[in-house]
Amino acid sequence: MADDMVLPLLLEIGSHQEDVAETLILVGRFLIIFLAARSLAELMVRLQLPSILGELLAGVLIGVSGLHLLLPPESGAQLAAWPVQIVSQLASVSTERVREIYMTSFGSLQQLSTLGLYALLFLTGLESELDELVAVGPQAATVAMTGVVLPFAAGSAGLYYLFHLPAIAAVFAGAAMTATSIGITASVFGELGFLKTREGQIVIGAAVLDDILGIIILAVVVSLASGNALRLAPILKLVLAALVFVAAAIWLSQRAAPLFDKLLDWLKAPGEVVVAAFVVLILCCFASQAIGLEAALGAFAAGLILSQSERTEAIQETVKPLVALFATIFFVLIGTAMDLSVLNPFDPANRQGLVVAAFLLAVAIAGKLASGWTYFSAEPTRRLVVGLGMLPRGEVGLIFLGLGSQAGLLTPSLEAAILMMVIGTTFLAPLLLRAVLVGPDRDIQKA
Amino acid sequence: MADDMVLPLLLEIGSHQEDVAETLILVGRFLIIFLAARSLAELMVRLQLPSILGELLAGVLIGVSGLHLLLPPESGAQLAAWPVQIVSQLASVSTERVREIYMTSFGSLQQLSTLGLYALLFLTGLESELDELVAVGPQAATVAMTGVVLPFAAGSAGLYYLFHLPAIAAVFAGAAMTATSIGITASVFGELGFLKTREGQIVIGAAVLDDILGIIILAVVVSLASGNALRLAPILKLVLAALVFVAAAIWLSQRAAPLFDKLLDWLKAPGEVVVAAFVVLILCCFASQAIGLEAALGAFAAGLILSQSERTEAIQETVKPLVALFATIFFVLIGTAMDLSVLNPFDPANRQGLVVAAFLLAVAIAGKLASGWTYFSAEPTRRLVVGLGMLPRGEVGLIFLGLGSQAGLLTPSLEAAILMMVIGTTFLAPLLLRAVLVGPDRDIQKA
Repeated sequence: MADDMVLPLLLEIGSHQEDVAETLILVGRFLIIFLAARSLAELMVRLQLPSILGELLAGVLIGVSGLHLLLPPESGAQLAAWPVQIVSQLASVSTERVREIYMTSFGSLQQLSTLGLYALLFLTGLESELDELVAVGPQAATVAMTGVVLPFAAGSAGLYYLFHLPAIAAVFAGAAMTATSIGITASVFGELGFLKTREGQIVIGAAVLDDILGIIILAVVVSLASGNALRLAPILKLVLAALVFVAAAIWLSQRAAPLFDKLLDWLKAPGEVVVAAFVVLILCCFASQAIGLEAALGAFAAGLILSQSERTEAIQETVKPLVALFATIFFVLIGTAMDLSVLNPFDPANRQGLVVAAFLLAVAIAGKLASGWTYFSAEPTRRLVVGLGMLPRGEVGLIFLGLGSQAGLLTPSLEAAILMMVIGTTFLAPLLLRAVLVGPDRDIQKA
Repeated sequence: MADDMVLPLLLEIGSHQEDVAETLILVGRFLIIFLAARSLAELMVRLQLPSILGELLAGVLIGVSGLHLLLPPESGAQLAAWPVQIVSQLASVSTERVREIYMTSFGSLQQLSTLGLYALLFLTGLESELDELVAVGPQAATVAMTGVVLPFAAGSAGLYYLFHLPAIAAVFAGAAMTATSIGITASVFGELGFLKTREGQIVIGAAVLDDILGIIILAVVVSLASGNALRLAPILKLVLAALVFVAAAIWLSQRAAPLFDKLLDWLKAPGEVVVAAFVVLILCCFASQAIGLEAALGAFAAGLILSQSERTEAIQETVKPLVALFATIFFVLIGTAMDLSVLNPFDPANRQGLVVAAFLLAVAIAGKLASGWTYFSAEPTRRLVVGLGMLPRGEVGLIFLGLGSQAGLLTPSLEAAILMMVIGTTFLAPLLLRAVLVGPDRDIQKA
């Protein structure tokens, strides 16, 4: 409105205009993310589907495969013209500069999404029953182990012997199928209220363990890829670090939670619950990252530790808004990075990738499903639920894809195939889980 | 522990190591901020002082004037060696690269702190009584106007005639004294439970209005500084935009809040309250920034609009954790940017600055205090409380300082003097307000 006359006045202090552009980009990006994510989440809930599917689809809709409104800088794609022009005109900054600010400020959105993942895993740990999780330890370990070994072995061998890919590429693609996305599974189980069931706890435990196995496999594969002889010592150290970490978390949950409660009683400055919980969260993230594991594992462990606190419910109430805001960003960003054009069967360049992808997807699904039938349990459990819960690869598969792609280990068609495997398992898992866990009859009664 | 052997394995994929370093920096920075801010906030609460003082002091302690653990890139100072070395060793990344990642990722911390400011102002608006705020409109307008004119006129004239500074520098320094920091005042009033008093509402209303006046003055001063003839049209348009914005917010609070409640009833995906409130918040931020006002004003207006919702309490509960986490970052960052070395009277280079600073501080305090006695009120109000509430300049003064410094309008001693004026009013206001609002007797009974 008034800006076309007012803003030239301010132009001399260029940095003020840049600040305006930065604020408009920051705020406008949130607007696009939340309007898209929430519209589709509402649609999904009305279709009796998990809301996370809506958030992933929203990412696809506004991302690389869709309207180009939200693009990770790595994608190399060109931002849509109209939002750039709006910001450029409102802030009196050139469109080139708007694009530059957009790209340089994207990292902060990714950090927010990382915080969202940590908050989600923290909440998952907080809502877990530690006793139950320890009780299902053997089952979770069996599911994790077989769910890693089966897709890895079948995938690598198939790619090498059937499709004659180089050994290192085959091994890398196999490795990309090993780790379940705990974020997606936890989100679906949580929304349906199945997190505290025996099946839910087996899946969460197994997903945490196969993340650790995934890190170990990554270390081994990278070592092989760089032509080193396989050295056992560092791998053993990584295994040891993982064991120590899990043991420390369980021990701390007994000892540290009462101390935490005493600390809360002693603290007087307002907002003490959320800040104290957040400090525990980042301490655990730092510790797990420092010993060579993923920070995300630390976030889960932090929740597990505080699950034994007397203030668990108060902590949950303060963490849930953080999850609602920032985990949404996390899932939307996963969607934006997915390039669905590799799925187009009419493009001849995609054909080879599609065949490889069909193979990978089949192995990825069969391998994890089978893991649901490998554990021994005295009580009856729904093995299909466990197998389905292990399906989604989500961000973990994308991280492997990104690493392999950067290291130049993958061919373009193999990259496309891994991406399709990730997309397929990520979208199928919530759909199938929802169908099996709730079933159509109960839905009709509920609606 | 294990990393000295494991990490070389992963070194080939350099970007993975960079990710580790980035995560350690992200997480470690939070750790430093919250441990320092909360320790000092607890100390302040026990000394019967507002916790925000502890957060500001924590910033000073870990920032440019202290341990150099948290440094805005603009400061040009060198990060302390030990945290850099810890990250460098844990992540197997060179110390130079750690410093680079630290600096490039600092923007995301600043964006989080901006979100914290928005959340705080949103909460302030939400907790305001709109009727009361409209009722005190004339008083707030008078306080805002005199609180802007008195320090601006006395400061500029004094610097020009007494200290013989260039006219443009004198005018700029005078302008830097105009705008009250609504964040600091709102935080102190909120913590003491005085936000809904008549005095609290006058101060909040006046602080919002003098932000608008500050933006108009900024436009005028910049226009003068760049040698342009003063053009009235753009200034009138800015005034018009501000009036339209305030009127629209008041109108929307009657019309939009019921619609918002209906929307909430209709939404089904989980986390709907916090996300819907957040969308209203960012819409208002975008709108106010787009018409040339500050996004922070939009955040306050958003809270004001939703203060008429039936779900106000539910919204407050979801916003408070965001404020506790991110507004803390905001206040700590203000503290880190303050260079207290300019206060050292034993450094001869500081002497001139100290004299000018003493003058500015006296004018800044006297001008705003006097504004408390300028309005007409049928009911008795505590005018000293209103005057003290208008004191803190905080981030607004620092923004003026940054802009003037970048534009090369200020001399080093004048920069130091403005900084001291900001530090002085920012720290004095909570101390004096606390003393006047609560008083020593009531404290002893409460403790």
